[in-house]
Amino acid sequence: MNQALEHLDLLIEARWVIPVEPAELTLENHAVAVRGGRILDILPISEARLRYSATETVCLEDHVLLPGLINLHTHTPMSLLRGYADDLPLMRWLQEAIWPAERQHVSEEFVFHGSLLGGAEMLLGGVTCANDMYFFPDAAARAYEQLGMRAVIGMTVIDFPTNYAADAADYLHKGLQAHSAWREHPLIDFALAPHAPYSVSDASFERIGSLAEELDLMIHIHAHETRDEIAQSLAEHGVRPLQRLQSLGLLGPNLLIAHAVHVTPDEIASLALNNVGIAHNPVSNMKLASGAAPVAAMLAAGIHVGLGTDGAASNNRLDILQEMRQAALLAKLSTMDASALPAHKILQMATIHAAHALGRSAELGSLRPGKLADMCAIALNSLETSPIFNVASHIVYACGREHVQETWVGGRHVVKGGVLLHNDNTELLRLSRLWQNSLQN
Amino acid sequence: MNQALEHLDLLIEARWVIPVEPAELTLENHAVAVRGGRILDILPISEARLRYSATETVCLEDHVLLPGLINLHTHTPMSLLRGYADDLPLMRWLQEAIWPAERQHVSEEFVFHGSLLGGAEMLLGGVTCANDMYFFPDAAARAYEQLGMRAVIGMTVIDFPTNYAADAADYLHKGLQAHSAWREHPLIDFALAPHAPYSVSDASFERIGSLAEELDLMIHIHAHETRDEIAQSLAEHGVRPLQRLQSLGLLGPNLLIAHAVHVTPDEIASLALNNVGIAHNPVSNMKLASGAAPVAAMLAAGIHVGLGTDGAASNNRLDILQEMRQAALLAKLSTMDASALPAHKILQMATIHAAHALGRSAELGSLRPGKLADMCAIALNSLETSPIFNVASHIVYACGREHVQETWVGGRHVVKGGVLLHNDNTELLRLSRLWQNSLQN
Repeated sequence: MNQALEHLDLLIEARWVIPVEPAELTLENHAVAVRGGRILDILPISEARLRYSATETVCLEDHVLLPGLINLHTHTPMSLLRGYADDLPLMRWLQEAIWPAERQHVSEEFVFHGSLLGGAEMLLGGVTCANDMYFFPDAAARAYEQLGMRAVIGMTVIDFPTNYAADAADYLHKGLQAHSAWREHPLIDFALAPHAPYSVSDASFERIGSLAEELDLMIHIHAHETRDEIAQSLAEHGVRPLQRLQSLGLLGPNLLIAHAVHVTPDEIASLALNNVGIAHNPVSNMKLASGAAPVAAMLAAGIHVGLGTDGAASNNRLDILQEMRQAALLAKLSTMDASALPAHKILQMATIHAAHALGRSAELGSLRPGKLADMCAIALNSLETSPIFNVASHIVYACGREHVQETWVGGRHVVKGGVLLHNDNTELLRLSRLWQNSLQN
Repeated sequence: MNQALEHLDLLIEARWVIPVEPAELTLENHAVAVRGGRILDILPISEARLRYSATETVCLEDHVLLPGLINLHTHTPMSLLRGYADDLPLMRWLQEAIWPAERQHVSEEFVFHGSLLGGAEMLLGGVTCANDMYFFPDAAARAYEQLGMRAVIGMTVIDFPTNYAADAADYLHKGLQAHSAWREHPLIDFALAPHAPYSVSDASFERIGSLAEELDLMIHIHAHETRDEIAQSLAEHGVRPLQRLQSLGLLGPNLLIAHAVHVTPDEIASLALNNVGIAHNPVSNMKLASGAAPVAAMLAAGIHVGLGTDGAASNNRLDILQEMRQAALLAKLSTMDASALPAHKILQMATIHAAHALGRSAELGSLRPGKLADMCAIALNSLETSPIFNVASHIVYACGREHVQETWVGGRHVVKGGVLLHNDNTELLRLSRLWQNSLQN
């Protein structure tokens, strides 16, 4: 054995590597060196073989290696409500289908099983981190731990009772309990998650604002999703939701807003000035007929805009590759400019922009030495991905999540050859079928 | 052997069957009986076993069986230009990338290989029939014959020279020669394909109109794709393209228009009155920033609107399942109505509406006794398609083409367990790589 070789846990040799930082770079025949769950080095394969000796070497001859994709806004347990009701106007969909089903069925077990199902789907599609908002955060954390997936779990607050909590104080108490219990876990983080301006009172927002400061937490919220929401805020509060959040002192770098579909140029300027992050959910916004967010303008203003799937009840896929393609297509349509949101920009949204919006850009979102080894590899060896002229463009416009073959979270292999490791697919399907039967009754 | 049993070539037993006609029906545990390449019967599995004895029985325990999908507008050989240039404004994309590449590379061999690659991709995604428009129709026909795929091949006419033909007369002559040579082939049909109002003269249109009548042929054309096209027609001809086609006597049931993105309510009424078919290409229209066709209004007016992928250079997938989801999402967004274009309507567009628009509804587009046995089966046994509440909705919103497992064309099995039969995948990849190298130089 050559004593001069440095030891690694993992060396991944790939036909292509897109590190995302530096921007717009596609490396050929490069290797990523991993030690202690972090990226140690990125270098040509030939040099890597001379410099390192790895416990495991993975050769990806036809693949492109990317930073793990981040799902910046989702309600993972709603995977159990996938396709439960479609093609309905928003309020009928909520009032006649989703809310009654949630009232009847949502429980600790629903959240645990739904998070396993949705999390497994995401890992198989190259998503290594989900910014999740639902109920029973402890059950969600147990599911992500079992999957080996990274998550930021929302401590949801709503000013009305659900199966999970009675009132705002109860929501906060339960959320903070889970946060406290999982404090030291390497994969699990928490965020304060006031549901939306229309469902949370000023008093609750003030309490959440202080807690965010005190505990150094992100705030994850839905806002400016529909025109109705804005009209309602104007009627009830005399201001648009963003003005209300601003006057409550919530606009800042620890605020992450899902949707921001209907925002004026002034609001975009204010979001940029306050360094607020945005989760763009193009498929959900189209499916629920909410509108097209001005993503190109927000990015141009310097806002970090990542991509989210929203819940599987309004999508119906927890598929960031789909959101990438959709974000590109929707931006081109809504600006009437075919050059809007080109492929590398889209890749940045799904990775480094999302990491910034989550306040985690030091650890996530690109393949840089020192960052966590969250990665996915997409195979480009199928008929439908041939020929190959531009790898970044192929990922966005030609590939689907079915081409994701490998996923690592913190250097741990969780999807190998398109198969979920450490978890029993058959058992997940069985659980999903049990819930299907129960929900159909 | 039970003498009372009727003989079949093929009996397919499926967990679900959506025959498309009658509308909005999802049959459970039904079988489709096939003899002589045609559908003979659809009945409960238990009855089928008592009535028929089949040479081959296929059991699809977790699958939904559908009519084969129809790609109503494509340029199949452009699969070789997949991803060749993306994220460019339309005219730069055409003038700086696509047209120069076509001038340098398009040949009989390019069309044969590109049609093999694109056709294989379509079969694997459940597409059994393509309405194709490109150059060298004889080479295209040879490719579809080799694949065992159904196609309507355009006899392209453009009033300027290409590698393929010198002038309108030359285009027509070559097209009609191919049409004549393939006249008796069960899988191959031809259509007259004047490229677009802006690229074809009045004289050529008049000749095409007479030929269509004389030879009983469909006319396949691009029209009203972009605002510029309409402005240019107004400047040059003093009328919008549809008015020009109408005054040339071309608006009728044998006319099939690709795109129709920008059409007024009066034009919609005229298209409906004249029974003109429309190929809607939502992904291409978004990617090239052309706009959103008023599909809900066209369907409401009684127009047969099918779905197309356009060419792989502007998509970049020949994937009708993607177009189905996109058509639904785009209609909801553009009408601001989440109930627009519900799942069963979308399934009709991809099958029976397309068959009507092609003038082939007596033979294609639904699973009815007497029709050709063009079918595909989608497996619903993955995590990402669980749970299952509504099969039609799942096909549109949750499934991708990767869930297509079986395809039959005229009763012949061409995709089995997700694998292309009768054709060598490795050879297709090798050919595609040769073209990739050649196009990169």
